[in-house]
Amino acid sequence: MSRIVYVNGEYVPEEEAKVSVFDRGFLFADGVYEVTSVLGGKLIDFAGHAARLHRSLGELDMQSPVTDDDLLTVHRTLVEKNGIEDGLVYLQITRGAADRDFAYPEGAAPTIVLFTQSKPGLADSPAAAKGIKVISIPDRRWGRRDIKTVQLLYPSMGKMMAKAAGADDAWMVEDGQVTEGTSNNAYIVKGNTIVTRHLGEEILHGITRAAVLRMAREAQMKVEERAFTVEEAQGADEAFITSASSFVMPVVEIDGAPLGDGTPGPVARRMREIYLDESRAAAV
Amino acid sequence: MSRIVYVNGEYVPEEEAKVSVFDRGFLFADGVYEVTSVLGGKLIDFAGHAARLHRSLGELDMQSPVTDDDLLTVHRTLVEKNGIEDGLVYLQITRGAADRDFAYPEGAAPTIVLFTQSKPGLADSPAAAKGIKVISIPDRRWGRRDIKTVQLLYPSMGKMMAKAAGADDAWMVEDGQVTEGTSNNAYIVKGNTIVTRHLGEEILHGITRAAVLRMAREAQMKVEERAFTVEEAQGADEAFITSASSFVMPVVEIDGAPLGDGTPGPVARRMREIYLDESRAAAV
Repeated sequence: MSRIVYVNGEYVPEEEAKVSVFDRGFLFADGVYEVTSVLGGKLIDFAGHAARLHRSLGELDMQSPVTDDDLLTVHRTLVEKNGIEDGLVYLQITRGAADRDFAYPEGAAPTIVLFTQSKPGLADSPAAAKGIKVISIPDRRWGRRDIKTVQLLYPSMGKMMAKAAGADDAWMVEDGQVTEGTSNNAYIVKGNTIVTRHLGEEILHGITRAAVLRMAREAQMKVEERAFTVEEAQGADEAFITSASSFVMPVVEIDGAPLGDGTPGPVARRMREIYLDESRAAAV
Repeated sequence: MSRIVYVNGEYVPEEEAKVSVFDRGFLFADGVYEVTSVLGGKLIDFAGHAARLHRSLGELDMQSPVTDDDLLTVHRTLVEKNGIEDGLVYLQITRGAADRDFAYPEGAAPTIVLFTQSKPGLADSPAAAKGIKVISIPDRRWGRRDIKTVQLLYPSMGKMMAKAAGADDAWMVEDGQVTEGTSNNAYIVKGNTIVTRHLGEEILHGITRAAVLRMAREAQMKVEERAFTVEEAQGADEAFITSASSFVMPVVEIDGAPLGDGTPGPVARRMREIYLDESRAAAV
Protein backbone atom coordinates (compact mmCIF):
# COMPACT_ATOMS: atom_id res chain seq x y z
CA MET A 1 0.00 0.00 0.00
CA SER A 2 1.28 3.40 -0.90
CA ARG A 3 1.69 5.84 1.97
CA ILE A 4 0.03 9.21 2.00
CA VAL A 5 2.64 11.94 2.39
CA TYR A 6 2.16 15.61 3.24
CA VAL A 7 4.01 18.07 0.98
CA ASN A 8 3.44 21.81 1.23
CA GLY A 9 -0.23 21.68 2.14
CA GLU A 10 -1.26 18.62 0.13
CA TYR A 11 -1.77 14.99 0.98
CA VAL A 12 -0.38 12.93 -1.89
CA PRO A 13 0.55 9.29 -2.58
CA GLU A 14 4.22 8.71 -1.82
CA GLU A 15 5.08 8.22 -5.51
CA GLU A 16 3.95 11.81 -6.11
CA ALA A 17 5.64 13.23 -3.01
CA LYS A 18 8.35 15.34 -4.56
CA VAL A 19 10.27 18.55 -4.05
CA SER A 20 12.04 20.80 -6.52
CA VAL A 21 15.66 19.98 -7.34
CA PHE A 22 16.23 23.65 -6.41
CA ASP A 23 15.04 23.03 -2.87
CA ARG A 24 17.74 24.16 -0.46
CA GLY A 25 17.17 21.00 1.56
CA PHE A 26 18.45 19.06 -1.46
CA LEU A 27 21.21 21.48 -2.55
CA PHE A 28 22.56 22.81 0.78
CA ALA A 29 21.17 20.57 3.56
CA ASP A 30 19.50 23.83 4.59
CA GLY A 31 16.69 22.29 6.59
CA VAL A 32 15.69 20.91 9.96
CA TYR A 33 13.65 17.92 11.05
CA GLU A 34 11.88 16.15 13.89
CA VAL A 35 10.79 12.55 14.40
CA THR A 36 7.82 11.90 16.69
CA SER A 37 6.92 8.42 17.82
CA VAL A 38 3.43 6.97 17.60
CA LEU A 39 2.25 4.38 20.08
CA GLY A 40 -1.29 3.08 20.02
CA GLY A 41 -2.12 5.62 17.33
CA LYS A 42 -1.10 8.56 19.54
CA LEU A 43 1.81 10.98 19.41
CA ILE A 44 4.56 10.85 22.05
CA ASP A 45 5.68 14.26 23.35
CA PHE A 46 4.43 16.25 20.37
CA ALA A 47 4.84 19.49 22.34
CA GLY A 48 8.50 18.77 23.01
CA HIS A 49 9.22 18.15 19.35
CA ALA A 50 7.30 21.26 18.27
CA ALA A 51 9.28 23.36 20.76
CA ARG A 52 12.61 22.02 19.53
CA LEU A 53 11.54 22.53 15.92
CA HIS A 54 11.02 26.22 16.65
CA ARG A 55 14.40 26.44 18.31
CA SER A 56 16.13 24.83 15.28
CA LEU A 57 14.28 27.12 12.87
CA GLY A 58 15.16 30.17 14.96
CA GLU A 59 18.87 29.32 15.03
CA LEU A 60 18.84 29.27 11.23
CA ASP A 61 16.67 32.39 10.76
CA MET A 62 13.92 30.27 9.25
CA GLN A 63 10.18 30.50 9.74
CA SER A 64 7.68 27.71 10.23
CA PRO A 65 5.20 27.71 7.35
CA VAL A 66 2.48 26.36 9.67
CA THR A 67 1.17 26.92 13.16
CA ASP A 68 1.68 24.29 15.86
CA ASP A 69 -2.04 23.58 15.80
CA ASP A 70 -1.89 22.89 12.07
CA LEU A 71 1.23 20.81 12.60
CA LEU A 72 -0.57 18.65 15.15
CA THR A 73 -3.49 18.27 12.76
CA VAL A 74 -1.17 17.15 9.95
CA HIS A 75 0.54 14.64 12.25
CA ARG A 76 -2.81 13.21 13.33
CA THR A 77 -4.19 13.17 9.81
CA LEU A 78 -1.17 11.24 8.51
CA VAL A 79 -1.38 8.77 11.39
CA GLU A 80 -5.02 8.17 10.55
CA LYS A 81 -4.72 8.10 6.75
CA ASN A 82 -1.84 5.62 6.98
CA GLY A 83 -3.37 3.52 9.73
CA ILE A 84 -0.32 3.91 11.98
CA GLU A 85 -0.74 2.08 15.28
CA ASP A 86 2.95 2.09 16.21
CA GLY A 87 5.55 3.97 14.22
CA LEU A 88 6.98 7.38 13.48
CA VAL A 89 6.00 10.69 11.97
CA TYR A 90 8.90 12.42 10.22
CA LEU A 91 8.76 16.17 9.66
CA GLN A 92 11.17 18.29 7.64
CA ILE A 93 11.17 22.02 6.96
CA THR A 94 13.66 23.59 4.56
CA ARG A 95 14.37 27.15 3.51
CA GLY A 96 12.56 26.38 0.25
CA ALA A 97 13.40 26.41 -3.43
CA ALA A 98 15.39 29.18 -5.11
CA ASP A 99 18.05 29.49 -7.78
CA ARG A 100 21.25 28.10 -6.32
CA ASP A 101 23.26 30.58 -4.24
CA PHE A 102 25.00 30.07 -0.89
CA ALA A 103 23.38 33.23 0.47
CA TYR A 104 19.87 32.72 1.82
CA PRO A 105 17.24 33.62 -0.79
CA GLU A 106 14.79 36.41 -0.11
CA GLY A 107 11.13 35.57 -0.29
CA ALA A 108 11.44 31.82 -0.81
CA ALA A 109 8.56 29.89 0.74
CA PRO A 110 9.73 27.22 3.21
CA THR A 111 9.18 23.62 2.16
CA ILE A 112 7.39 21.34 4.60
CA VAL A 113 7.22 17.58 4.26
CA LEU A 114 5.80 14.98 6.63
CA PHE A 115 5.58 11.23 6.23
CA THR A 116 4.94 8.23 8.42
CA GLN A 117 6.78 4.98 8.98
CA SER A 118 4.82 2.05 10.31
CA LYS A 119 6.75 0.06 12.94
CA PRO A 120 4.42 -2.55 14.42
CA GLY A 121 5.49 -3.45 17.94
CA LEU A 122 7.89 -0.49 18.12
CA ALA A 123 7.83 -0.54 21.92
CA ASP A 124 8.39 -4.30 22.11
CA SER A 125 11.58 -4.34 20.09
CA PRO A 126 13.57 -7.58 20.53
CA ALA A 127 16.67 -5.35 20.65
CA ALA A 128 15.43 -3.88 23.92
CA ALA A 129 15.31 -7.30 25.53
CA LYS A 130 18.79 -8.19 24.28
CA GLY A 131 20.48 -4.80 24.39
CA ILE A 132 22.67 -3.35 21.64
CA LYS A 133 26.40 -3.30 20.97
CA VAL A 134 28.16 -0.04 20.18
CA ILE A 135 31.58 0.88 18.90
CA SER A 136 33.28 4.24 19.40
CA ILE A 137 34.24 6.42 16.43
CA PRO A 138 35.65 9.95 16.18
CA ASP A 139 32.96 12.65 16.12
CA ARG A 140 33.56 14.41 12.82
CA ARG A 141 30.26 16.29 12.54
CA TRP A 142 29.89 20.03 12.24
CA GLY A 143 29.93 22.26 15.32
CA ARG A 144 26.22 22.97 15.81
CA ARG A 145 24.76 19.59 16.68
CA ASP A 146 22.22 21.32 18.89
CA ILE A 147 20.43 22.38 15.71
CA LYS A 148 18.58 19.36 14.32
CA THR A 149 19.60 19.78 10.68
CA VAL A 150 19.53 17.24 7.87
CA GLN A 151 23.34 17.27 7.66
CA LEU A 152 23.29 13.60 8.57
CA LEU A 153 25.92 12.09 6.33
CA TYR A 154 28.42 11.45 9.11
CA PRO A 155 25.86 9.75 11.38
CA SER A 156 24.95 7.60 8.36
CA MET A 157 28.61 6.74 7.83
CA GLY A 158 28.87 5.98 11.55
CA LYS A 159 25.94 3.55 11.34
CA MET A 160 27.72 1.80 8.44
CA MET A 161 30.99 1.67 10.42
CA ALA A 162 29.08 0.02 13.27
CA LYS A 163 27.49 -2.49 10.90
CA ALA A 164 30.88 -3.32 9.38
CA ALA A 165 32.24 -3.95 12.89
CA GLY A 166 29.36 -6.27 13.75
CA ALA A 167 27.82 -3.71 16.13
CA ASP A 168 24.43 -2.00 16.20
CA ASP A 169 25.46 1.62 16.58
CA ALA A 170 28.35 3.98 17.21
CA TRP A 171 29.11 6.42 20.00
CA MET A 172 31.02 9.45 18.83
CA VAL A 173 34.07 10.72 20.67
CA GLU A 174 35.50 14.24 20.62
CA ASP A 175 38.50 15.44 22.62
CA GLY A 176 38.51 12.11 24.42
CA GLN A 177 34.88 12.34 25.58
CA VAL A 178 31.73 10.68 24.29
CA THR A 179 29.35 13.20 22.70
CA GLU A 180 26.40 10.99 21.74
CA GLY A 181 25.26 8.11 19.54
CA THR A 182 24.71 8.51 15.79
CA SER A 183 21.02 9.31 16.33
CA ASN A 184 20.55 9.15 20.09
CA ASN A 185 21.90 10.40 23.40
CA ALA A 186 24.30 8.21 25.40
CA TYR A 187 24.18 7.31 29.10
CA ILE A 188 26.11 5.28 31.61
CA VAL A 189 24.93 4.06 35.00
CA LYS A 190 27.06 3.71 38.13
CA GLY A 191 25.17 2.53 41.20
CA ASN A 192 22.22 4.85 41.64
CA THR A 193 23.66 7.51 39.32
CA ILE A 194 22.86 8.13 35.66
CA VAL A 195 25.56 10.04 33.77
CA THR A 196 24.93 11.72 30.42
CA ARG A 197 26.70 14.49 28.57
CA HIS A 198 25.72 18.04 29.53
CA LEU A 199 23.83 20.13 26.98
CA GLY A 200 25.73 22.41 24.63
CA GLU A 201 26.42 22.84 20.93
CA GLU A 202 28.22 19.45 20.92
CA ILE A 203 25.07 17.33 21.18
CA LEU A 204 21.44 17.23 20.22
CA HIS A 205 19.13 18.31 23.01
CA GLY A 206 17.10 15.13 22.97
CA ILE A 207 13.40 15.38 23.71
CA THR A 208 13.51 11.83 25.05
CA ARG A 209 16.65 12.77 27.01
CA ALA A 210 14.81 15.59 28.81
CA ALA A 211 11.87 13.34 29.66
CA VAL A 212 14.02 10.43 30.86
CA LEU A 213 16.18 12.64 33.09
CA ARG A 214 13.05 14.17 34.63
CA MET A 215 11.57 10.73 35.25
CA ALA A 216 14.89 9.44 36.66
CA ARG A 217 14.97 12.28 39.19
CA GLU A 218 11.35 11.60 40.08
CA ALA A 219 12.33 7.97 40.64
CA GLN A 220 15.01 9.12 43.14
CA MET A 221 17.90 8.37 40.80
CA LYS A 222 20.86 10.73 40.86
CA VAL A 223 21.57 12.42 37.52
CA GLU A 224 24.98 13.82 36.54
CA GLU A 225 25.09 15.85 33.35
CA ARG A 226 28.77 15.73 32.35
CA ALA A 227 31.08 14.26 29.75
CA PHE A 228 32.54 10.78 30.15
CA THR A 229 35.14 8.71 28.34
CA VAL A 230 34.80 5.36 26.58
CA GLU A 231 36.98 3.87 29.32
CA GLU A 232 34.65 5.15 32.03
CA ALA A 233 31.69 3.76 30.09
CA GLN A 234 33.35 0.36 29.76
CA GLY A 235 33.79 0.30 33.53
CA ALA A 236 30.20 1.38 34.25
CA ASP A 237 27.53 -0.92 35.69
CA GLU A 238 25.33 -0.44 32.65
CA ALA A 239 24.67 1.88 29.73
CA PHE A 240 21.81 2.90 27.49
CA ILE A 241 20.75 5.28 24.76
CA THR A 242 17.59 7.31 24.30
CA SER A 243 15.87 8.65 21.20
CA ALA A 244 12.33 9.29 20.04
CA SER A 245 12.26 6.02 18.10
CA SER A 246 14.26 3.73 20.41
CA PHE A 247 12.88 5.21 23.68
CA VAL A 248 15.34 3.83 26.27
CA MET A 249 17.54 1.12 24.76
CA PRO A 250 20.06 -0.84 26.85
CA VAL A 251 23.67 -0.98 25.66
CA VAL A 252 25.43 -4.20 26.62
CA GLU A 253 28.81 -3.87 24.90
CA ILE A 254 31.16 -0.98 24.10
CA ASP A 255 34.08 -1.55 21.73
CA GLY A 256 33.92 -5.28 22.38
CA ALA A 257 33.87 -4.97 26.19
CA PRO A 258 30.68 -6.36 27.75
CA LEU A 259 29.05 -4.27 30.47
CA GLY A 260 28.27 -6.14 33.68
CA ASP A 261 27.06 -9.60 32.69
CA GLY A 262 26.42 -8.52 29.08
CA THR A 263 22.66 -8.28 29.45
CA PRO A 264 20.42 -5.19 29.88
CA GLY A 265 20.86 -3.67 33.31
CA PRO A 266 18.06 -3.03 35.83
CA VAL A 267 18.22 0.78 35.57
CA ALA A 268 17.92 0.79 31.78
CA ARG A 269 15.06 -1.71 31.94
CA ARG A 270 13.27 0.27 34.62
CA MET A 271 13.74 3.62 32.89
CA ARG A 272 12.42 2.12 29.64
CA GLU A 273 9.34 0.87 31.44
CA ILE A 274 8.73 4.18 33.23
CA TYR A 275 9.32 6.18 30.04
CA LEU A 276 6.95 4.03 27.97
CA ASP A 277 4.25 4.04 30.65
CA GLU A 278 4.36 7.79 31.24
CA SER A 279 4.68 8.61 27.54
CA ARG A 280 1.72 6.45 26.63
CA ALA A 281 -0.35 8.05 29.38
CA ALA A 282 0.53 11.55 28.14
CA ALA A 283 0.33 10.78 24.41
CA VAL A 284 -1.92 12.90 22.22
CA MET B 1 12.26 31.51 -19.95
CA SER B 2 12.16 28.24 -18.11
CA ARG B 3 15.41 26.33 -17.94
CA ILE B 4 15.72 22.76 -19.10
CA VAL B 5 17.00 20.58 -16.28
CA TYR B 6 18.34 17.03 -16.39
CA VAL B 7 16.86 14.61 -13.85
CA ASN B 8 17.63 10.89 -13.94
CA GLY B 9 17.88 10.57 -17.71
CA GLU B 10 15.26 13.09 -18.72
CA TYR B 11 15.40 16.68 -19.88
CA VAL B 12 12.49 18.53 -18.27
CA PRO B 13 11.35 22.14 -17.72
CA GLU B 14 12.61 23.41 -14.38
CA GLU B 15 9.10 23.51 -12.92
CA GLU B 16 8.92 19.74 -13.41
CA ALA B 17 12.45 19.07 -12.17
CA LYS B 18 11.75 17.23 -8.94
CA VAL B 19 13.09 14.49 -6.74
CA SER B 20 11.35 12.24 -4.24
CA VAL B 21 11.02 13.53 -0.68
CA PHE B 22 12.61 10.16 0.20
CA ASP B 23 15.76 11.06 -1.72
CA ARG B 24 18.74 10.74 0.61
CA GLY B 25 20.09 14.00 -0.76
CA PHE B 26 17.05 15.69 0.80
CA LEU B 27 16.85 13.64 4.02
CA PHE B 28 20.52 13.02 4.88
CA ALA B 29 22.63 15.35 2.69
CA ASP B 30 23.87 12.04 1.32
CA GLY B 31 25.11 13.35 -2.01
CA VAL B 32 28.01 14.99 -3.80
CA TYR B 33 28.23 17.73 -6.41
CA GLU B 34 30.39 19.56 -8.92
CA VAL B 35 30.12 22.97 -10.56
CA THR B 36 31.73 23.43 -13.97
CA SER B 37 32.13 26.85 -15.54
CA VAL B 38 31.09 27.65 -19.08
CA LEU B 39 32.88 30.34 -21.06
CA GLY B 40 32.02 31.02 -24.68
CA GLY B 41 29.68 28.03 -24.60
CA LYS B 42 32.48 25.64 -23.64
CA LEU B 43 33.23 23.72 -20.45
CA ILE B 44 36.23 24.67 -18.31
CA ASP B 45 38.24 21.68 -17.00
CA PHE B 46 35.48 19.13 -17.36
CA ALA B 47 37.99 16.31 -16.91
CA GLY B 48 39.14 17.72 -13.57
CA HIS B 49 35.59 17.93 -12.26
CA ALA B 50 34.74 14.43 -13.49
CA ALA B 51 37.83 13.05 -11.75
CA ARG B 52 36.97 14.73 -8.46
CA LEU B 53 33.37 13.55 -8.74
CA HIS B 54 34.60 9.94 -8.89
CA ARG B 55 36.82 10.54 -5.88
CA SER B 56 33.90 11.98 -3.85
CA LEU B 57 31.62 9.10 -4.86
CA GLY B 58 34.31 6.56 -4.01
CA GLU B 59 34.86 8.01 -0.53
CA LEU B 60 31.15 7.52 0.16
CA ASP B 61 30.84 4.06 -1.44
CA MET B 62 28.56 5.47 -4.11
CA GLN B 63 28.44 4.70 -7.80
CA SER B 64 28.04 7.08 -10.70
CA PRO B 65 24.84 6.27 -12.57
CA VAL B 66 26.40 7.47 -15.86
CA THR B 67 29.69 7.17 -17.71
CA ASP B 68 31.97 10.20 -18.08
CA ASP B 69 31.17 10.28 -21.79
CA ASP B 70 27.46 10.47 -21.01
CA LEU B 71 28.15 13.09 -18.37
CA LEU B 72 29.97 15.24 -20.91
CA THR B 73 27.09 14.82 -23.34
CA VAL B 74 24.56 15.90 -20.70
CA HIS B 75 26.67 18.94 -19.82
CA ARG B 76 26.92 19.95 -23.47
CA THR B 77 23.26 19.29 -24.17
CA LEU B 78 22.18 21.49 -21.25
CA VAL B 79 24.54 24.27 -22.33
CA GLU B 80 23.03 24.12 -25.80
CA LYS B 81 19.37 23.73 -24.79
CA ASN B 82 19.65 26.65 -22.38
CA GLY B 83 21.73 28.83 -24.67
CA ILE B 84 24.50 29.24 -22.08
CA GLU B 85 27.33 31.42 -23.36
CA ASP B 86 28.84 32.16 -19.95
CA GLY B 87 27.66 30.47 -16.79
CA LEU B 88 27.74 27.28 -14.80
CA VAL B 89 26.66 23.66 -15.01
CA TYR B 90 25.72 22.23 -11.62
CA LEU B 91 25.78 18.44 -11.13
CA GLN B 92 24.56 16.49 -8.11
CA ILE B 93 24.52 12.76 -7.47
CA THR B 94 22.86 11.30 -4.38
CA ARG B 95 22.53 7.80 -3.02
CA GLY B 96 18.94 7.81 -4.25
CA ALA B 97 15.50 7.42 -2.74
CA ALA B 98 14.66 4.81 -0.10
CA ASP B 99 12.55 4.59 3.03
CA ARG B 100 14.28 6.66 5.68
CA ASP B 101 17.05 4.86 7.56
CA PHE B 102 20.50 6.10 8.57
CA ALA B 103 22.07 2.93 7.17
CA TYR B 104 22.71 3.03 3.43
CA PRO B 105 19.89 1.36 1.50
CA GLU B 106 20.60 -1.66 -0.63
CA GLY B 107 19.71 -1.50 -4.27
CA ALA B 108 18.62 2.16 -4.40
CA ALA B 109 19.34 3.77 -7.77
CA PRO B 110 21.49 6.92 -7.46
CA THR B 111 19.77 10.19 -8.29
CA ILE B 112 21.47 12.46 -10.81
CA VAL B 113 20.51 16.08 -11.42
CA LEU B 114 22.14 18.70 -13.61
CA PHE B 115 21.10 22.28 -14.26
CA THR B 116 22.63 25.41 -15.71
CA GLN B 117 22.94 28.96 -14.46
CA SER B 118 23.41 31.70 -17.02
CA LYS B 119 25.98 34.32 -15.91
CA PRO B 120 26.59 36.70 -18.81
CA GLY B 121 30.05 38.26 -18.56
CA LEU B 122 31.09 35.77 -15.87
CA ALA B 123 34.79 36.32 -16.66
CA ASP B 124 34.45 40.12 -16.66
CA SER B 125 33.02 40.39 -13.17
CA PRO B 126 33.25 43.94 -11.75
CA ALA B 127 34.25 42.29 -8.46
CA ALA B 128 37.47 41.09 -10.09
CA ALA B 129 38.46 44.66 -10.97
CA LYS B 130 37.69 45.91 -7.48
CA GLY B 131 38.62 42.91 -5.38
CA ILE B 132 36.55 41.46 -2.55
CA LYS B 133 36.52 41.93 1.20
CA VAL B 134 36.58 38.93 3.51
CA ILE B 135 36.05 38.39 7.21
CA SER B 136 37.35 35.46 9.23
CA ILE B 137 35.01 33.09 11.03
CA PRO B 138 35.56 29.85 12.94
CA ASP B 139 35.51 26.76 10.71
CA ARG B 140 32.68 24.67 12.14
CA ARG B 141 32.17 22.26 9.24
CA TRP B 142 32.43 18.50 9.45
CA GLY B 143 35.80 16.77 9.22
CA ARG B 144 35.77 15.52 5.61
CA ARG B 145 35.81 18.70 3.57
CA ASP B 146 37.84 16.90 0.90
CA ILE B 147 34.61 15.13 -0.07
CA LYS B 148 32.47 17.58 -2.03
CA THR B 149 29.17 16.84 -0.30
CA VAL B 150 26.01 18.93 -0.18
CA GLN B 151 26.44 19.49 3.57
CA LEU B 152 26.70 23.20 2.84
CA LEU B 153 24.71 24.80 5.62
CA TYR B 154 27.73 26.23 7.45
CA PRO B 155 29.24 27.78 4.30
CA SER B 156 25.79 29.31 3.68
CA MET B 157 25.74 30.67 7.22
CA GLY B 158 29.28 32.00 6.67
CA LYS B 159 28.19 33.84 3.54
CA MET B 160 25.39 35.44 5.57
CA MET B 161 27.81 36.39 8.36
CA ALA B 162 30.01 38.07 5.74
CA LYS B 163 27.02 39.93 4.30
CA ALA B 164 25.96 41.09 7.76
CA ALA B 165 29.50 42.41 8.33
CA GLY B 166 29.47 44.31 5.04
CA ALA B 167 31.96 41.91 3.46
CA ASP B 168 31.75 39.67 0.39
CA ASP B 169 32.89 36.37 1.80
CA ALA B 170 34.37 34.62 4.83
CA TRP B 171 37.61 32.74 5.37
CA MET B 172 37.29 29.92 7.86
CA VAL B 173 39.80 29.45 10.65
CA GLU B 174 40.56 26.25 12.53
CA ASP B 175 43.21 25.83 15.23
CA GLY B 176 44.40 29.33 14.45
CA GLN B 177 44.98 28.67 10.73
CA VAL B 178 42.92 29.58 7.68
CA THR B 179 41.40 26.54 6.03
CA GLU B 180 39.60 28.08 3.03
CA GLY B 181 36.80 30.40 1.94
CA THR B 182 33.13 29.40 2.17
CA SER B 183 33.15 28.09 -1.41
CA ASN B 184 36.71 28.69 -2.60
CA ASN B 185 40.37 28.14 -1.75
CA ALA B 186 42.35 30.95 -0.09
CA TYR B 187 45.79 32.31 -1.04
CA ILE B 188 48.22 34.97 0.10
CA VAL B 189 51.13 36.43 -1.86
CA LYS B 190 54.46 37.54 -0.43
CA GLY B 191 56.92 38.82 -3.00
CA ASN B 192 57.26 36.10 -5.65
CA THR B 193 55.67 33.43 -3.46
CA ILE B 194 52.08 32.20 -3.44
CA VAL B 195 51.01 30.52 -0.19
CA THR B 196 47.92 28.32 0.04
CA ARG B 197 46.88 25.66 2.49
CA HIS B 198 48.21 22.14 1.85
CA LEU B 199 45.78 19.44 0.78
CA GLY B 200 44.19 17.21 3.38
CA GLU B 201 40.80 16.39 4.82
CA GLU B 202 40.51 19.98 6.10
CA ILE B 203 39.88 21.58 2.70
CA LEU B 204 38.32 20.96 -0.67
CA HIS B 205 40.84 19.90 -3.28
CA GLY B 206 39.98 22.68 -5.69
CA ILE B 207 40.09 21.92 -9.39
CA THR B 208 40.83 25.59 -10.02
CA ARG B 209 43.42 25.46 -7.22
CA ALA B 210 45.31 22.65 -8.97
CA ALA B 211 45.27 24.49 -12.29
CA VAL B 212 46.33 27.84 -10.82
CA LEU B 213 49.21 26.33 -8.85
CA ARG B 214 50.45 24.55 -11.98
CA MET B 215 50.23 27.75 -13.99
CA ALA B 216 51.95 29.74 -11.21
CA ARG B 217 54.87 27.34 -11.22
CA GLU B 218 55.06 27.52 -15.02
CA ALA B 219 55.16 31.32 -14.67
CA GLN B 220 58.21 30.98 -12.38
CA MET B 221 56.31 31.87 -9.20
CA LYS B 222 57.25 30.04 -6.03
CA VAL B 223 54.40 28.05 -4.47
CA GLU B 224 54.23 27.12 -0.79
CA GLU B 225 51.49 24.71 0.22
CA ARG B 226 51.12 25.30 3.94
CA ALA B 227 48.71 26.74 6.50
CA PHE B 228 48.76 30.45 7.36
CA THR B 229 47.09 32.64 9.98
CA VAL B 230 44.77 35.62 9.52
CA GLU B 231 47.56 37.81 10.91
CA GLU B 232 50.04 36.55 8.31
CA ALA B 233 47.42 37.14 5.61
CA GLN B 234 46.80 40.70 6.81
CA GLY B 235 50.52 41.36 6.52
CA ALA B 236 50.84 39.81 3.04
CA ASP B 237 51.41 41.82 -0.15
CA GLU B 238 48.16 40.56 -1.63
CA ALA B 239 45.60 37.79 -1.42
CA PHE B 240 43.11 36.01 -3.62
CA ILE B 241 40.67 33.15 -3.81
CA THR B 242 40.02 30.57 -6.52
CA SER B 243 36.94 28.57 -7.44
CA ALA B 244 35.34 27.21 -10.59
CA SER B 245 32.90 30.11 -10.73
CA SER B 246 35.10 32.99 -9.53
CA PHE B 247 38.28 31.78 -11.28
CA VAL B 248 40.99 33.89 -9.57
CA MET B 249 39.44 36.67 -7.49
CA PRO B 250 41.57 39.30 -5.72
CA VAL B 251 41.00 39.86 -2.00
CA VAL B 252 41.70 43.43 -0.90
CA GLU B 253 40.65 43.42 2.74
CA ILE B 254 40.72 40.87 5.57
CA ASP B 255 38.81 41.57 8.79
CA GLY B 256 38.81 45.29 8.00
CA ALA B 257 42.54 45.49 7.27
CA PRO B 258 43.30 46.53 3.67
CA LEU B 259 46.03 44.58 1.86
CA GLY B 260 48.71 46.73 0.23
CA ASP B 261 46.98 49.79 -1.21
CA GLY B 262 43.56 48.14 -1.02
CA THR B 263 43.33 47.34 -4.72
CA PRO B 264 43.87 44.02 -6.53
CA GLY B 265 47.55 43.09 -6.56
CA PRO B 266 49.63 42.34 -9.67
CA VAL B 267 50.04 38.61 -8.95
CA ALA B 268 46.29 38.03 -8.53
CA ARG B 269 45.56 40.01 -11.69
CA ARG B 270 48.20 38.16 -13.66
CA MET B 271 47.12 34.71 -12.42
CA ARG B 272 43.52 35.52 -13.29
CA GLU B 273 44.55 36.48 -16.81
CA ILE B 274 46.72 33.41 -17.27
CA TYR B 275 44.04 31.12 -15.84
CA LEU B 276 41.29 32.52 -18.03
CA ASP B 277 43.47 32.45 -21.17
CA GLU B 278 44.65 28.88 -20.66
CA SER B 279 41.25 27.61 -19.53
CA ARG B 280 39.50 29.13 -22.54
CA ALA B 281 42.10 27.59 -24.84
CA ALA B 282 41.61 24.15 -23.29
CA ALA B 283 37.81 24.36 -22.87
CA VAL B 284 35.68 21.61 -24.34
